[in-house]
Amino acid sequence: MAKLRIGELLKKVREQKPVVHHITNWVTIYDCANIVKVFGASPVMAHAKEEAADMAGIASALVLNIGTLTPDLIESMIIAAKSANKKGIPVVLDVCGAGATRLRDRKSFELLNKVKINIIKGNASEVARIAGEKVATKGVDAGSVKKNPAQIAQGLAKKRGCTVVITGKEDTVADKKRVFTVRNGHSIMGHVVGTGCMAASMIGTFAAVEKDLALAAAAGLACFEIAAEIAARKAEGPGTFKERLYDAAFNLKPRTADEMHKIFQIANCKL
Amino acid sequence: MAKLRIGELLKKVREQKPVVHHITNWVTIYDCANIVKVFGASPVMAHAKEEAADMAGIASALVLNIGTLTPDLIESMIIAAKSANKKGIPVVLDVCGAGATRLRDRKSFELLNKVKINIIKGNASEVARIAGEKVATKGVDAGSVKKNPAQIAQGLAKKRGCTVVITGKEDTVADKKRVFTVRNGHSIMGHVVGTGCMAASMIGTFAAVEKDLALAAAAGLACFEIAAEIAARKAEGPGTFKERLYDAAFNLKPRTADEMHKIFQIANCKL
Amino acid sequence: MAKLRIGELLKKVREQKPVVHHITNWVTIYDCANIVKVFGASPVMAHAKEEAADMAGIASALVLNIGTLTPDLIESMIIAAKSANKKGIPVVLDVCGAGATRLRDRKSFELLNKVKINIIKGNASEVARIAGEKVATKGVDAGSVKKNPAQIAQGLAKKRGCTVVITGKEDTVADKKRVFTVRNGHSIMGHVVGTGCMAASMIGTFAAVEKDLALAAAAGLACFEIAAEIAARKAEGPGTFKERLYDAAFNLKPRTADEMHKIFQIANCKL
Repeated sequence: MAKLRIGELLKKVREQKPVVHHITNWVTIYDCANIVKVFGASPVMAHAKEEAADMAGIASALVLNIGTLTPDLIESMIIAAKSANKKGIPVVLDVCGAGATRLRDRKSFELLNKVKINIIKGNASEVARIAGEKVATKGVDAGSVKKNPAQIAQGLAKKRGCTVVITGKEDTVADKKRVFTVRNGHSIMGHVVGTGCMAASMIGTFAAVEKDLALAAAAGLACFEIAAEIAARKAEGPGTFKERLYDAAFNLKPRTADEMHKIFQIANCKL
Repeated sequence: MAKLRIGELLKKVREQKPVVHHITNWVTIYDCANIVKVFGASPVMAHAKEEAADMAGIASALVLNIGTLTPDLIESMIIAAKSANKKGIPVVLDVCGAGATRLRDRKSFELLNKVKINIIKGNASEVARIAGEKVATKGVDAGSVKKNPAQIAQGLAKKRGCTVVITGKEDTVADKKRVFTVRNGHSIMGHVVGTGCMAASMIGTFAAVEKDLALAAAAGLACFEIAAEIAARKAEGPGTFKERLYDAAFNLKPRTADEMHKIFQIANCKL
Repeated sequence: MAKLRIGELLKKVREQKPVVHHITNWVTIYDCANIVKVFGASPVMAHAKEEAADMAGIASALVLNIGTLTPDLIESMIIAAKSANKKGIPVVLDVCGAGATRLRDRKSFELLNKVKINIIKGNASEVARIAGEKVATKGVDAGSVKKNPAQIAQGLAKKRGCTVVITGKEDTVADKKRVFTVRNGHSIMGHVVGTGCMAASMIGTFAAVEKDLALAAAAGLACFEIAAEIAARKAEGPGTFKERLYDAAFNLKPRTADEMHKIFQIANCKL
């Protein structure tokens, strides 16, 4: 397979400046908005039931994150997702903390059953839980899982008819037919709150400009993680890393994205 | 007109350390609090209906922002604003996202009709919508508007009997009699989430120490934007810019504010 | 008294990576999570009534903060605290803004009366209010108090059978038998929003790995404030300070914590 050209997608994000509607958690809501903004798109965070449908209706992608879910917030997510489904824009669900409490499991499945989720995203144990595997989850950090991520991701992708992303040291992106791995990123990302949520926002942002959702997800992750690699070079710890991450994202050139990305297709090459 | 001396107002903020009560959005709530704090005042964020009146009662200004509004939050805003009106402290309303959804329009007008708003603040398309103009809004970023900002701002100021602020590359501040422009700031402000919300907080902070609300708004904007200009000098992107913005705000000398501000009165000079 | 060895506790935090469950305010929720993360533990923020008990049940400490309380949120805190009490994990209550409104006073006492709070934490005027003293509070910043902190803290510790922490230029930590002062920290901490809330999170994090709660609280505060001292060396203001604080916390060596801490026992030496 020739190396993917993801710089094109980054250019599209900056040219089209898609509105990316989020209903997300209260911890990293700023970071989700800001990473979308610095990459050149237009974030909007709106969770009121009374405007969720309207806002999704003017957006080009919808990102849902259950990090600090309440039943009320899930209701808004369902309203927004129905509006997004109707309009035909992609819906990303970050199953943040799935496996940690019964509420998170129940509500994740409720979302998956009531609306069309186009991209499911989580860490290894979260996605494994959604795929029906037995896992030990520890709060919102990844627990241990037996099966390999590619198997779990593609199994779930087939079952749900969607794209599945498992983040980790190496990310896995699968749809029914293909599995990509993204080998970009830096270990310091695991020592800052918010990198996982921002990854979901980037997936949504790239899905707003590219219909091949597995490709969009891989490209969004790669661009984000390349920015992280660049930021880590001069960072002295997780604080300065995070600020430099925004700088690097803002300054990332399409050509650099093309050169630095490590996206590989590991099964059924059909691109 | 002799050049305005806004350094005096900055000194007053630091000496009086006014309590600035906010009911704001969940995205930039930290940034709103922190910009008020680093400029030397005392932010307090409190949105429970059960304490909104009490908190406004111990404050010197109230800042309302509908960025992530819900009907419940608007109820709290009304309670707080009534308490502020009774006490005679200024109320700033940031009509964040007006024009984007019906809820935002409806609730903005509800606030304007039920309580006295002393300063309305928004970007060009948001304020135009509140002024009854037709506009194309795109999420929370500014859409295009036909009339010029000075006309819209002063028209709305006269209609509502208040001060109106339109932010943008050049800010416009109008009351019934005067129109000021503030030509400070830096383009990078448009690439970071939160600068608009922080601007409203600064307007509230300066309004807490100066009864001439148009002057207070112009001075608050100018001080904030001068700090942004200083911060931009050494920033390598939006991440390092934002941290340096807090440094520059904290370190801003009244004399520098006097020297660097570009506040001009463009109509009916009566100062 | 030989100098305390708090580096051991810092090591334990990093080895055990305890899950620290928070129900906190919307202003500093990110900072609370991130300071816990960079020190090596695992923060989880979850406030839904429907999962508060489950989440506290998988945690090693619970941190409650009433900074942006609502009656609903207090209900969740009670549910989480009951679960924590049952499991025997420590519960920290940051009485943020106590004294500022009637709601805050009433709800603080409701929490203290309905569940077992193991560590009460606040600034001088907040804790004085909880101890029944008359105080002038100004928003969420400390007002003036007559009695000295050691008296107030130990009085309240005896009355409530818990550990009491009063933060300030010099922190006071008291239980029934002992009073410690922590003389670490830097004046710039008072010019950034969130340092008080983060201090409560650090107390909770260290209480997750050490049963002597007064010692845990003193060690958590000292480690946090030593990181602040280190961060302040190269900071040019509150913005760069805050980022460097995360770097310094992440990079803090147990040996440095032992060398730099200024924890002193000022009464009834029984360690």
